[in-house]
Amino acid sequence: MLSPRESDRLRVVLVSTRNPLNIGAAARAMSNFGFEHLRVVNPYGPAFREARSAVGAAEVLAHTEEYSKVADAVADCSLVVGTSAIQKRAPQIRVMGLEIAMELLRAHLRHARAAVLFGSEKRGLSNEDLSHCHWLVHIPTHEEHPSMNLGQAVAVCLYELARAEDGRSAPMIAKAATAGQLERVTELLIDALRTSGYLSGTAGASSEASLRQFVRRLGIGDDDAETLLGMLRQITWKLKRE
Amino acid sequence: MLSPRESDRLRVVLVSTRNPLNIGAAARAMSNFGFEHLRVVNPYGPAFREARSAVGAAEVLAHTEEYSKVADAVADCSLVVGTSAIQKRAPQIRVMGLEIAMELLRAHLRHARAAVLFGSEKRGLSNEDLSHCHWLVHIPTHEEHPSMNLGQAVAVCLYELARAEDGRSAPMIAKAATAGQLERVTELLIDALRTSGYLSGTAGASSEASLRQFVRRLGIGDDDAETLLGMLRQITWKLKRE
Repeated sequence: MLSPRESDRLRVVLVSTRNPLNIGAAARAMSNFGFEHLRVVNPYGPAFREARSAVGAAEVLAHTEEYSKVADAVADCSLVVGTSAIQKRAPQIRVMGLEIAMELLRAHLRHARAAVLFGSEKRGLSNEDLSHCHWLVHIPTHEEHPSMNLGQAVAVCLYELARAEDGRSAPMIAKAATAGQLERVTELLIDALRTSGYLSGTAGASSEASLRQFVRRLGIGDDDAETLLGMLRQITWKLKRE
Repeated sequence: MLSPRESDRLRVVLVSTRNPLNIGAAARAMSNFGFEHLRVVNPYGPAFREARSAVGAAEVLAHTEEYSKVADAVADCSLVVGTSAIQKRAPQIRVMGLEIAMELLRAHLRHARAAVLFGSEKRGLSNEDLSHCHWLVHIPTHEEHPSMNLGQAVAVCLYELARAEDGRSAPMIAKAATAGQLERVTELLIDALRTSGYLSGTAGASSEASLRQFVRRLGIGDDDAETLLGMLRQITWKLKRE
């Protein structure tokens, strides 16, 4: 997990973006994952301030800086990372998978500024843009449909960058029912099934064992066991009342 | 990494989506990460076919299926997972981090169908929608700006689902009941509980949603679902006979 100070060292740089909606979407993803500094290089005519759809990203957009050259937009950063969903034929530049790339980027942000560059919707980063990059991240998409929407590519990269390092937040598992609770469920169930005729009067120990096992196969939590007991009591009472 | 056959078992379900652009964006992310089956439940007026911006997602959109109810859209799936960027106050449902959740989902897709549900742009999934889910995935966003754009949320989830596995072995899961089976269990249970007087005649949608969730919390296997249906049928028959 990045600290606020580390997140603050990242610059997201959108190069030659055509669609203001995508600038808004990038800003929103930044807000979602705790990044603040957006830079746009040479955005298309209708100014990037038209960027809409950026629910909750007003702050990011208000402080967005505009540049006319990539060189200026990354000048204060000591690591510059390009992005691509397409396997670029750019033998001069090192290409890394997203996961390892974001791990290296995280390490860099511990002590210094870094920039991540996203190219235009149609062409991605040009060779000139790439020449400013230390290396290139490849987002692992499907061969037949490799090209990602810009806002979605930003979201996926920043999600991967911001993810918890140990990564694995544990599931919240309900407290399991005790064997005693399960046994009471089993007894009441057997009673209800006999009374209703589902189990015949002569059904013996093997049917009971199989029902007991049935109850244990259900993953019953401790609150749910009490609920189930209440249901079975009421059903059995009603069945027997007549 | 999912095999094509495993990817083919996933259903992405968009519930009450308002903006056709977001349907297009979801479809595009699906294409990017190798998923094909999109279902929409009750999309907003201007039909989902307006979905544009879906460069490269024409195939997905051409085969998108439209439903009016969540229950129908997930009926053939044996695992139903809800998504939320907000920490829901839904104590009845188990919430998991994205990474572990997608690991479990991958394991399930090895042998059976599963659905991932995304709610509307404004409100996310309703409590009724959530009652159809086995558990809920929490996308780890920043506290101050938790709410993600729909298309970006889909992209992040599917990226995480499709990512290469690092050799961790997946847990073994018995063949789970389908959502259709669980819904039949729920209906019969409600019927039995009403007839027995456990539920009053005036108990409404929220009691039903809470019972539906109760049934999903039980980890019911597919054979056990049939057994349970048989029990409930007999009990209800007997309860009503008098």
